[in-house]
Amino acid sequence: MTNKDARTPASVQSETSQEAGKSIGWHKAYVEGSRSDLRVPVRQVHLTNGQSVTLYDTSGPYTDPLVDTDVRRGLPPLRENWIIARGDTEEYAGRPVRPEDDGIKHTSPRGGLRNLDAVFPGRPRQPRRGRDGQAVTQLAYARRGEITPEMEYVAIRENVSPEVVREEIAAGRAVLPANVNHPEIEPMIIGKRFLVKVNANIGNSAVTSSIEEEVEKMTWATRWGADTVMDLSTGRNIHTTREWVLRNSPVPIGTVPLYQALEKVDGKAEELTWEIYKDTVIEQAEQGVDYMTVHAGVRLAYVPLTANRKTGIVSRGGSIMAAWCLAHHKESFLYENFEELCEILAAYDVTYSLGDGLRPGSIADANDEAQFAELRTLGELNRIAKRFNVQTMIEGPGHVPMHKIKENIDLQQEICDEAPFYTLGPLTTDVAPAYDHITSGIGAAMIAWWGTAMLCYVTPKEHLGLPNRDDVKTGVITYKIAAHAADLAKGHPGAQEWDDALSDARFEFRWEDQFNLALDPDTAREFHDETLPAEPAKTAHFCSMCGPKFCSMKISQDIRREHGGSRTEIEEGMAQKSKEFAEAGNRVYLPIAD
Amino acid sequence: MTNKDARTPASVQSETSQEAGKSIGWHKAYVEGSRSDLRVPVRQVHLTNGQSVTLYDTSGPYTDPLVDTDVRRGLPPLRENWIIARGDTEEYAGRPVRPEDDGIKHTSPRGGLRNLDAVFPGRPRQPRRGRDGQAVTQLAYARRGEITPEMEYVAIRENVSPEVVREEIAAGRAVLPANVNHPEIEPMIIGKRFLVKVNANIGNSAVTSSIEEEVEKMTWATRWGADTVMDLSTGRNIHTTREWVLRNSPVPIGTVPLYQALEKVDGKAEELTWEIYKDTVIEQAEQGVDYMTVHAGVRLAYVPLTANRKTGIVSRGGSIMAAWCLAHHKESFLYENFEELCEILAAYDVTYSLGDGLRPGSIADANDEAQFAELRTLGELNRIAKRFNVQTMIEGPGHVPMHKIKENIDLQQEICDEAPFYTLGPLTTDVAPAYDHITSGIGAAMIAWWGTAMLCYVTPKEHLGLPNRDDVKTGVITYKIAAHAADLAKGHPGAQEWDDALSDARFEFRWEDQFNLALDPDTAREFHDETLPAEPAKTAHFCSMCGPKFCSMKISQDIRREHGGSRTEIEEGMAQKSKEFAEAGNRVYLPIAD
Repeated sequence: MTNKDARTPASVQSETSQEAGKSIGWHKAYVEGSRSDLRVPVRQVHLTNGQSVTLYDTSGPYTDPLVDTDVRRGLPPLRENWIIARGDTEEYAGRPVRPEDDGIKHTSPRGGLRNLDAVFPGRPRQPRRGRDGQAVTQLAYARRGEITPEMEYVAIRENVSPEVVREEIAAGRAVLPANVNHPEIEPMIIGKRFLVKVNANIGNSAVTSSIEEEVEKMTWATRWGADTVMDLSTGRNIHTTREWVLRNSPVPIGTVPLYQALEKVDGKAEELTWEIYKDTVIEQAEQGVDYMTVHAGVRLAYVPLTANRKTGIVSRGGSIMAAWCLAHHKESFLYENFEELCEILAAYDVTYSLGDGLRPGSIADANDEAQFAELRTLGELNRIAKRFNVQTMIEGPGHVPMHKIKENIDLQQEICDEAPFYTLGPLTTDVAPAYDHITSGIGAAMIAWWGTAMLCYVTPKEHLGLPNRDDVKTGVITYKIAAHAADLAKGHPGAQEWDDALSDARFEFRWEDQFNLALDPDTAREFHDETLPAEPAKTAHFCSMCGPKFCSMKISQDIRREHGGSRTEIEEGMAQKSKEFAEAGNRVYLPIAD
Repeated sequence: MTNKDARTPASVQSETSQEAGKSIGWHKAYVEGSRSDLRVPVRQVHLTNGQSVTLYDTSGPYTDPLVDTDVRRGLPPLRENWIIARGDTEEYAGRPVRPEDDGIKHTSPRGGLRNLDAVFPGRPRQPRRGRDGQAVTQLAYARRGEITPEMEYVAIRENVSPEVVREEIAAGRAVLPANVNHPEIEPMIIGKRFLVKVNANIGNSAVTSSIEEEVEKMTWATRWGADTVMDLSTGRNIHTTREWVLRNSPVPIGTVPLYQALEKVDGKAEELTWEIYKDTVIEQAEQGVDYMTVHAGVRLAYVPLTANRKTGIVSRGGSIMAAWCLAHHKESFLYENFEELCEILAAYDVTYSLGDGLRPGSIADANDEAQFAELRTLGELNRIAKRFNVQTMIEGPGHVPMHKIKENIDLQQEICDEAPFYTLGPLTTDVAPAYDHITSGIGAAMIAWWGTAMLCYVTPKEHLGLPNRDDVKTGVITYKIAAHAADLAKGHPGAQEWDDALSDARFEFRWEDQFNLALDPDTAREFHDETLPAEPAKTAHFCSMCGPKFCSMKISQDIRREHGGSRTEIEEGMAQKSKEFAEAGNRVYLPIAD
């Protein structure tokens, strides 16, 4: 996660993570690549001992005081020149936006007047798509041996060579979601050879929340480390909300087009058609959605497999498709039209996230026939997508007890040719509503260790309500913990440097450094100050847990200090003793009769 | 965890978990054993569908409205008659309580006047110990083939036969911590064949908190499911605080006698002596401490092994002993006098918790030579303890990345003859101060799955400050999740019934049942009501996450309903289809060219 010894940041802008007046903090910095418009943002933490630690940064231009951001204008189109320079895409008039895109079909009071203020006021833009016969996906470029600026960008972020990035994408083991209509993103990569990523879901519902809230949730989630954001809106103004989110998002945005399609038929699943769905996909692709969850694996024949389940079908997309299949007694229109869908996604470089519509919704239903039947179909669909040069990842469960987790990732990797796995949790028990960020954080850490590339967060509100700002933060932080724990367990190069820097700070009682290096500096500082608010406590060689006399680390330091001069000297002295001890055959145990 | 089909509770007292006026809730009930004074408390959750679920209960008489509790009087001495009836213990005058037991050595302003109000006002009691030559530990009884009332009690709690309990204790694979001077406890067992247990730490520090707060934290922790509580007080009034806690605790109480001993020598580690330590152990054993952490594995020769560590020695007990060893250049007095210590603990049936004084305090230090050298010594000490019939468990780390966790439990089980492992976390990363309940909950769930018998909780304040009431609750709930996830993964008989009951309630939109079955009903209800506060929402067939049109479980139910009559009929119909499908060879995939 750190790349202390890597490139020197090209420029370091000064910014404090706290309110003005705090002298120590972190700075937004950039690592420049092979061209001046390729500047990779990092979070540079300056320590009180003069060192600094560089951390991966997902927060976008919002944390750069030199960039004047305005959500009404949107973010600068970072990738625009790269996309244009490739010369394989063209602008076109695009599909006209219709009132029903925002769920305004009727003039009933509920339908109401369109809130004109809500329309995104930013620069006018025309959608872009691949020219006829042109393969414009990162997968196509990688297969051709081309290293795109996007690939170089993520190579710098991940501290690997661009060739590794290209290889992993070409092999289908990684995806770089980057719709040609979403030039605002800072490219990132999802694959098991890279840092484990975290997705945060946002989105309004029929019951509550506004456009402003969703944009705010997106910037808030990325502020805490979300690598991608899914807009799962199901309420009003779906199109317009998404426009605001896309134009302001520094991370790839995912959606489930089926949700909006269902809104267009007033929530009646049986009235869905391929045409309505396709139109919705084009609508969203033109806006710039980077990856789409497609539940094409929910086939007619699998629905009966869920009959004896404890919790039936718990995926919204899965249940909608199951309802459609049964209503018409026909095969899924997503499955039947999958090749045409591939052509559409390929034209915009939209990445597939093949949805697990039959994922288990309870411990009892984990790893059952329905789930694995669908997974085998996703394996087939993955191969089709690859024929069309569409980048593809595979979604995974759900609710799975710990002893059944490994089977999920192992089977997925086998069946889906190592395509990136993207799992929701899994939740390792059903008994803790209000704490499902934790029940699932446990499963997430484990499945990521074993090879899952991206984790979809779960917030404390899961199963109970719509997450608010605090829930989003708690969900993201919990999943960043799971992801980083997995990076450590996988031995990801450089991952442990972050832990080491924080542990050094802890041992040396550099409290400010501990706070600034923490995943959540604000809460760490707040918790410390709750018991010891006075400023001198920030340099005290103890904390309120044990008090001054009982601090083990202080005693540990005293031992080193008292039995020699400097810490280095005593360490050398103790190391020498340790060596002698080893040379004596480690015979330290008293002979004790059993 | 549930024993739905087990014994009928002897009596069910009515009590609501919420304020008066809520009609549905849970009740404290008792399962009677072979004698009328052997009544095992359970939490009986009454569901709106007429069924009920019985859950393990640690909350003590406080949640029984028929028991008139008063912290100034203490809990009724449940086990007193059992202990007396065995006829192998005797009351004696006991060690006089001295001012310095409470840290009042001087008459300085800081030493101050003793707060007489703080003296525990309950019934006068004399300490009790084993008569000369009598082995009065549960281990001794088990080895002799005796099934004590305590063993029968835990057998009912665990839904196993008393003989299994006796066997596991006799083999040293489980401990039943129950000091003869702590008759108030409701017996419980710690061992890998039983439900995974959770310990909560309380205790004041030199910096903050009062006796009342500590008693309140203890009852609060057990209210949320703590199976044992350690009083780690290091501030003033250590003796008196412990007396209050013991007399009011329904769960076994553990301590680290070294902390109090150090207070008696004004915090100067080098002034500690075996006599002061021994006197402290007797003082605490007479009060009724059920298990004691003893850092006898920190030997002189191991201290240099910590020299090159990133975070040195982070166990308070470990660092105190290391400081003593180095100051005197002598072997640890705990190690040297271990046999005499065994004799003392045996006389009261105090259980050893052999401390891991050299546990790693950072990811960098995990599984190092210092840690495993100490573990090997703990293996030797375990065998000595068993010779003296002292029940023994072994403490474990600490900070350990996921890929190094399994080695810890495997080595411990091998070296320590399968003695119960009792671990602190482990924390799977160092980078998230303020969220270490989560970094460690991940490791705790994993290590418990692999055989750890008890988990010491970590609160959000770990590394930062002293936990308050909310932190204690969060820590306990997080660790109950880890423990239950492990019970599920181990396939503990009955564990999944709890998850199944909650998932059934979820699928059938029985919101009140979901809340009442939740580990934390209050927060689950509060989160739900935050978005949908109206009473009808409690019976609504959707929640605020998706709203009515998008609820997958509603659609799932509708599918079942629309394609047949009753849910049973449609399930049968779908199952039949599923059977036909299987008989047709599961050939559901379209032939697709790769």
